[in-house]
Amino acid sequence: MRPEIVLFGDSITEQSFRSGGWGAALADTYSRKADVKVRGYGGYNTRWALFLMQHLFPLDSKKPPAAATIFFGANDAAILGRTSERQHVPVEEYKENLRKIVLHMKECSPAILIVLITPPPVDEDGRNEYARSLYGEDAREEPERMNEVTGIYAKKCIELAEEMGLRSINLWSKLQETEGWQKKFLSDGLHLTPEGNAVVHQEVVRDFREAWFSAEEMPYDFPHHSNIDEKNPEKAFQQRCA
Amino acid sequence: MRPEIVLFGDSITEQSFRSGGWGAALADTYSRKADVKVRGYGGYNTRWALFLMQHLFPLDSKKPPAAATIFFGANDAAILGRTSERQHVPVEEYKENLRKIVLHMKECSPAILIVLITPPPVDEDGRNEYARSLYGEDAREEPERMNEVTGIYAKKCIELAEEMGLRSINLWSKLQETEGWQKKFLSDGLHLTPEGNAVVHQEVVRDFREAWFSAEEMPYDFPHHSNIDEKNPEKAFQQRCA
Repeated sequence: MRPEIVLFGDSITEQSFRSGGWGAALADTYSRKADVKVRGYGGYNTRWALFLMQHLFPLDSKKPPAAATIFFGANDAAILGRTSERQHVPVEEYKENLRKIVLHMKECSPAILIVLITPPPVDEDGRNEYARSLYGEDAREEPERMNEVTGIYAKKCIELAEEMGLRSINLWSKLQETEGWQKKFLSDGLHLTPEGNAVVHQEVVRDFREAWFSAEEMPYDFPHHSNIDEKNPEKAFQQRCA
Repeated sequence: MRPEIVLFGDSITEQSFRSGGWGAALADTYSRKADVKVRGYGGYNTRWALFLMQHLFPLDSKKPPAAATIFFGANDAAILGRTSERQHVPVEEYKENLRKIVLHMKECSPAILIVLITPPPVDEDGRNEYARSLYGEDAREEPERMNEVTGIYAKKCIELAEEMGLRSINLWSKLQETEGWQKKFLSDGLHLTPEGNAVVHQEVVRDFREAWFSAEEMPYDFPHHSNIDEKNPEKAFQQRCA
């Protein structure tokens, strides 16, 4: 009955139902109007995400999603030769993988509304602090992700959105507009604080609204309690649920 | 692929995806293992909830829910002759309505795990303060809900759970075990603070775990990223997704 919104991405999507998370906030915004389904896979890059497509978005689905966010790149942009190099995907392949994800989703659900989200910026000091908290003196001195490199991935993501006529959120740029973004928006140099989550929530809601997938304009699935006549409750349900 | 947990109830369920909410926390606990679907209807009592059953839980569903919480009573217990009397349902009817909800769910999904949750206690001073914040001097002096009366509904809910062999959470009693529960757990004398939400989350997780619907023991839907061989990623997906 309700349309479905799928959040597809890496750990930043997987963790989006923690307290203050953007996924939970989105579920609350679309309360009684749309269902939010989380498909976040911590540590995944776009190369590994491709293996999930036919399982998560089967082409014979009777009720494909109405809207989706695609939010990868933080892992693809891991630096070769450093701690997280196994997650690295070359930037051109990242872009082509994103394209394959979009094309598959559109094949599964031709009218789907897709919003591409770039990876957030990287606070390299924050990453180093985090590594030291894990490995102490054994931590490498060089961060495994670099802000400038992630920026190249973010640019490719926006480029693809423009080529394919999709909405997009340049989170990499957006967060850096605010002074002190490093600690204000990021908890460990990479994942989002509640304030960072609030920005993602606000941007996704804006994009959905501008695409006319607006929570305010969508009907409730069942009557508001104030519209139920307590003497004849069945009336309200006959009208809406026939 | 993933089993589904449905949260069925009134506003306390509807609001469970706000920051610090028990629904969002449950979605996070079952991350990558089960989907949480919110079916919370603010202001609804069990009489009105019955009109939703065939729509929300169609008997011919191919993928009925694996587990559910049923969390009503806060509105049923509204006092006759006071502000919210239109929501009132007599306590015996409340119990029978709950029974009908359970029986329908079991018909839809014979193996379903059901946890009944009683309404939380009522802080009458908190309700009066809330009424004054809405209506100023026009607010009635008598609270529209009374803790003692809600306690009778809670007792009926537990009674039904025992009769039907269901798990239950006596939230009405549980919250009152803590000194200062009125402000600690309730925001307006009726709805939950983040601390109150945390108690519901903890109790639901415990009940689910004891019924062997334990997040810790359930497999991930797809491999953890550390189990993906970056040279042969397809291997990890062949094993798990065949």
